[in-house]
Amino acid sequence: MKRKVYLDNSSTTPVDSKVLDVMLPYLSENYGNPSSLHELGRINKNAIENSRIKISKIINCGVGEIIFTSGGTEANNLAIFGIARANKNKGKHIIVSSIEHKSILDVCKVLEKEGFEIDCLDVDKNGLVKLEMLKSKIRKDTILVSVMHANNEIGSIQSIKKISKIIKIKNSNIIFHTDACQAVGALSVDVKNLGVDAMTVSASKIYGPKGIGVLYISNRVKIESMIVGGGQERGFRSGTENVASIVGLAEALEICEKKRKTESERLELIRNYFISQIKNKIKEVVINGGVKNRLPNNVNFSIKGVEGESLLLMLDDKGIYCSTGSACSAINLEPSYVLLKIGLPLDLAHCSIRFTLGRYTKKSDIDYTIKVLVESVNKIRSMSSVKYDKQ
Amino acid sequence: MKRKVYLDNSSTTPVDSKVLDVMLPYLSENYGNPSSLHELGRINKNAIENSRIKISKIINCGVGEIIFTSGGTEANNLAIFGIARANKNKGKHIIVSSIEHKSILDVCKVLEKEGFEIDCLDVDKNGLVKLEMLKSKIRKDTILVSVMHANNEIGSIQSIKKISKIIKIKNSNIIFHTDACQAVGALSVDVKNLGVDAMTVSASKIYGPKGIGVLYISNRVKIESMIVGGGQERGFRSGTENVASIVGLAEALEICEKKRKTESERLELIRNYFISQIKNKIKEVVINGGVKNRLPNNVNFSIKGVEGESLLLMLDDKGIYCSTGSACSAINLEPSYVLLKIGLPLDLAHCSIRFTLGRYTKKSDIDYTIKVLVESVNKIRSMSSVKYDKQ
Repeated sequence: MKRKVYLDNSSTTPVDSKVLDVMLPYLSENYGNPSSLHELGRINKNAIENSRIKISKIINCGVGEIIFTSGGTEANNLAIFGIARANKNKGKHIIVSSIEHKSILDVCKVLEKEGFEIDCLDVDKNGLVKLEMLKSKIRKDTILVSVMHANNEIGSIQSIKKISKIIKIKNSNIIFHTDACQAVGALSVDVKNLGVDAMTVSASKIYGPKGIGVLYISNRVKIESMIVGGGQERGFRSGTENVASIVGLAEALEICEKKRKTESERLELIRNYFISQIKNKIKEVVINGGVKNRLPNNVNFSIKGVEGESLLLMLDDKGIYCSTGSACSAINLEPSYVLLKIGLPLDLAHCSIRFTLGRYTKKSDIDYTIKVLVESVNKIRSMSSVKYDKQ
Repeated sequence: MKRKVYLDNSSTTPVDSKVLDVMLPYLSENYGNPSSLHELGRINKNAIENSRIKISKIINCGVGEIIFTSGGTEANNLAIFGIARANKNKGKHIIVSSIEHKSILDVCKVLEKEGFEIDCLDVDKNGLVKLEMLKSKIRKDTILVSVMHANNEIGSIQSIKKISKIIKIKNSNIIFHTDACQAVGALSVDVKNLGVDAMTVSASKIYGPKGIGVLYISNRVKIESMIVGGGQERGFRSGTENVASIVGLAEALEICEKKRKTESERLELIRNYFISQIKNKIKEVVINGGVKNRLPNNVNFSIKGVEGESLLLMLDDKGIYCSTGSACSAINLEPSYVLLKIGLPLDLAHCSIRFTLGRYTKKSDIDYTIKVLVESVNKIRSMSSVKYDKQ
């Protein structure tokens, strides 16, 4: 059997077997509709509420400040659409970073058509938001700022606390949202400590199931629902609750939080070893993004003359799974806008490749990856140089 | 152990063990993000596309006419919001039946605020849409009609084919949507045969998992997406796909379709036996809705002087699970608007109770239910008469 090394954990993670174990009863004997008044309904209602309590303890919010959604994308959409539309009487100006996930940026495009004004914050070469620019952009009619906690492509970690302070000092009415999909498991997601009013979490990035997410939203914040009907989730998100996945999400989050410190340290060591080996063994390689303030599991680099896509497919052939750009937009082959925003030239952006380590990554996986990576790069480069010679 | 009889299958169904079996690999070894280019991504991409093919064959549509959503509620929201907003330049008039699910009616309320005009069609005492009213309401600027295939509370089956003909003859530009959540498994959901341009299906009503649904939408119909971001589902529904549940939905639909005729006949026999026993053994009982054009699994009746809620709780105590009103709005204790619309007086609406049979319902379950039901009704009536005497 082919050796398999999964280094695409920022695209999605495997489901932890402990998470699946707690989900299974809700995919079999506990099948009631949580809105039903009978015992089977109440069992599932309780399962949801217990999950909500678990999550609220971890992110340090009220139990009634959690809205379950169908994933990170819906939670981000609900945050931006919902807050903007519910607060438009106070102003129509919104600030986001230019390296947000598409599920933030694309919502902003729709909102622009609805008359909102969007300001996108530049980032430096390390992918960190320019705080001076943030300060200068805040206005009286700014109603919402959204800056992701950690970036999915280059792993840059924003100082959410510092950003929150800047916002609140300049205009205390502004609602501050952070997309923490990539941060959970590596960073603290204590909403009070971070100073955020709204936060997105997704299960599929933290060893939970796909198709479930959470929007934390402070009780003080007005929000308009997107999906209406049965009135579930206090009216903010209708639809029969995905009980099994909600239970799975809570379990996944709890496991991540318990393992957070040891896992972060373990991954950082392996990651740094990975980077040092790459630098040693491959010529003309550029690490994309900074070293400081970077998720411990993220490696992103460009190898001159080696197209990311070709490299990905060669690695794939050897059972090594990684990504170029972000998987969420891997369908279109445009170069990553995140890499362009940190100032990477177009050709190097096309030559980028991302490895994201995870809970099941061992040092031996990295040794195998480096071996195959060096072979593949040499092969591609030799082929292209042959071509080059012939031209 | 307490005997358990689940008669709330229209609220939600248990997951068929065969459905769970096909889902499990996608909750364990097949964990890739379908947008990832590597092998694990492609496996899951293929799983989704194979599910799409399966579903398209059953509902007789093109493979590219299926949008996966997080459930029936989102699919209904997407249909009504999406079609209305994308076609508003052609007109802003919408017609729905007055007994649609809240996930249709509540969307209409939001659309009214956006300047759309909504006409609600009356139904007769059997819960069937008044076709003459439909004819008279269709206008030049009518862009959308939505009538559910079968009602969740009283099981009334609309003649979708006939309704489609009426619509298309009067104004061939009108888009016709049907919510088929309750119809699947009992009725044909061949979209060409039905003459619908859009149709909603939910997995959680057909022995599939909660949190997944389908919107069929004809390629000819313009629709605006609700959730934006990664561009999944041809841009109509962003967010990492819930692969396990998509695979489960396709399997559930296939099983339902295979069993449809035999199951419908089997359930109808048991259901009719149930109704005849109720009529024989309980005095002053009214069957809500008609006998003809009724889902084979639906029993809904009102027992004079016996409040539905009290009866439900007594039955619950004996392990019999049923519902009053619809579970989706069981949180608020207002009487069912569906029952009021078919002309039931308020007091009888409060005395309504619904039993919905399913794949695992046996005749012996019904015998047990009748026994407990008669005992409970007698008990409630005796108590209330005692109270009555004392006043």
